[in-house]
Amino acid sequence: MNAAGTPGRDGLGEMIGLEITGHTADEVTGRVEVTDRILQPAGLLHGGVYAAVAESMCSMGTYLAVYERGETAMGQSNSTTFLRPVTEGHVSARATPRHRGRTTWVWDVDFTDPEGRLCAMARVTIAVRPAP
Amino acid sequence: MNAAGTPGRDGLGEMIGLEITGHTADEVTGRVEVTDRILQPAGLLHGGVYAAVAESMCSMGTYLAVYERGETAMGQSNSTTFLRPVTEGHVSARATPRHRGRTTWVWDVDFTDPEGRLCAMARVTIAVRPAP
Amino acid sequence: MNAAGTPGRDGLGEMIGLEITGHTADEVTGRVEVTDRILQPAGLLHGGVYAAVAESMCSMGTYLAVYERGETAMGQSNSTTFLRPVTEGHVSARATPRHRGRTTWVWDVDFTDPEGRLCAMARVTIAVRPAP
Amino acid sequence: MNAAGTPGRDGLGEMIGLEITGHTADEVTGRVEVTDRILQPAGLLHGGVYAAVAESMCSMGTYLAVYERGETAMGQSNSTTFLRPVTEGHVSARATPRHRGRTTWVWDVDFTDPEGRLCAMARVTIAVRPAP
Repeated sequence: MNAAGTPGRDGLGEMIGLEITGHTADEVTGRVEVTDRILQPAGLLHGGVYAAVAESMCSMGTYLAVYERGETAMGQSNSTTFLRPVTEGHVSARATPRHRGRTTWVWDVDFTDPEGRLCAMARVTIAVRPAP
Repeated sequence: MNAAGTPGRDGLGEMIGLEITGHTADEVTGRVEVTDRILQPAGLLHGGVYAAVAESMCSMGTYLAVYERGETAMGQSNSTTFLRPVTEGHVSARATPRHRGRTTWVWDVDFTDPEGRLCAMARVTIAVRPAP
Repeated sequence: MNAAGTPGRDGLGEMIGLEITGHTADEVTGRVEVTDRILQPAGLLHGGVYAAVAESMCSMGTYLAVYERGETAMGQSNSTTFLRPVTEGHVSARATPRHRGRTTWVWDVDFTDPEGRLCAMARVTIAVRPAP
Repeated sequence: MNAAGTPGRDGLGEMIGLEITGHTADEVTGRVEVTDRILQPAGLLHGGVYAAVAESMCSMGTYLAVYERGETAMGQSNSTTFLRPVTEGHVSARATPRHRGRTTWVWDVDFTDPEGRLCAMARVTIAVRPAP
């Protein structure tokens, strides 16, 4: 959201090709296509992509749930664990809120490779604050 | 590194504008310019940028230390904590290896804003494995 | 496990009163009674208890799955998030393996308070190594 | 602290033998003796001990800095990384506040074995809230 409280564009999300595929109160889903532009030097999907996707999805999900009551959302911590390398195809992400607190939300994000295997997991804490 | 063991390009690092400014056995330093392309919707530097920078720097630092003995480096976990929003200027990063184990290296990365204040921290675990 | 590969006693687990209530290939369950001896100064269940319970349960679950093939398990990282204070009754824990890798297992542990509400979560990485 | 705002006893800290050896505005130091009572089944210092020590020291350090202005401290997350097994002697801990925010403090804790080698690290986030 910008100064006026209206959500702006997710620059990094767009740059890496994040596509939001679903959004309800209980989950946010998305996916990203593995292209050369988001690999690391060994030819694998760069770990920063998982963290960025998780950050975008959890911030968005929290923001959409709290902005009507005059609050905003800001990332506080992002802990991503990489389980299995991915080199091509789409990686899918599913974010679920595990805790909706007054001042923090905690989300789990599971990432699956094109064969549906868990390839990474993130746990993200989003701070909820009065909108500026 | 690609299949031949030669380091390839860091696609995501290039895309976000990561500039490596120094590299010794005891630290890797870098910086990134805060542009519209890497903001999140509220106009702040996107949290995924910190995680991506940390991941690139720590993977590179580990790889350069182990590849001569036939090993390679692969991110295992990345835990980033966001302390202070940044909206413009350059963010600087300094990565230091805290543990150089046989199978894992653990790094700390401190990020500072243009005024030199700590704005984020990452702890990154890189797996060391025999090169393919 | 001791030098002979036979599991020894879990000193800390016993001291805090950890009771293992179930164990299958897909989960380990346990509980701990909240007594004065494991509180922190404000009268809440000490955060270290959650971390200790998670560590004991995930190490045990991994060890029991790998020791027959001559491997052992050793904690590598433990990340616990505290969601809701608990002051009395029993806290229940359920640990599920999310990734069974060749060299690491990753577990999620959910903790619930006496009313069944999620009060803490842990993500634990256990290294799998050849037994000594 | 108890309901009256007066710090109570650190039950778990006492039980594991935590000794606070120093406290200034910029660090808290402590140590714990490795005894049978706090080992895990393989005969190594239990990972939960590191997490508990870190939690006690960082909560104490934050509490002592904020209680005079009517605030209290409560653990929010604790992420501990285990680097090197310890089987006997004393483990020393040094906690330093890396961020003193209005609503959260973030600490780093380094643990060293009897030979002075880094054996574990913790990053701890403590929430600062109005005292009840």
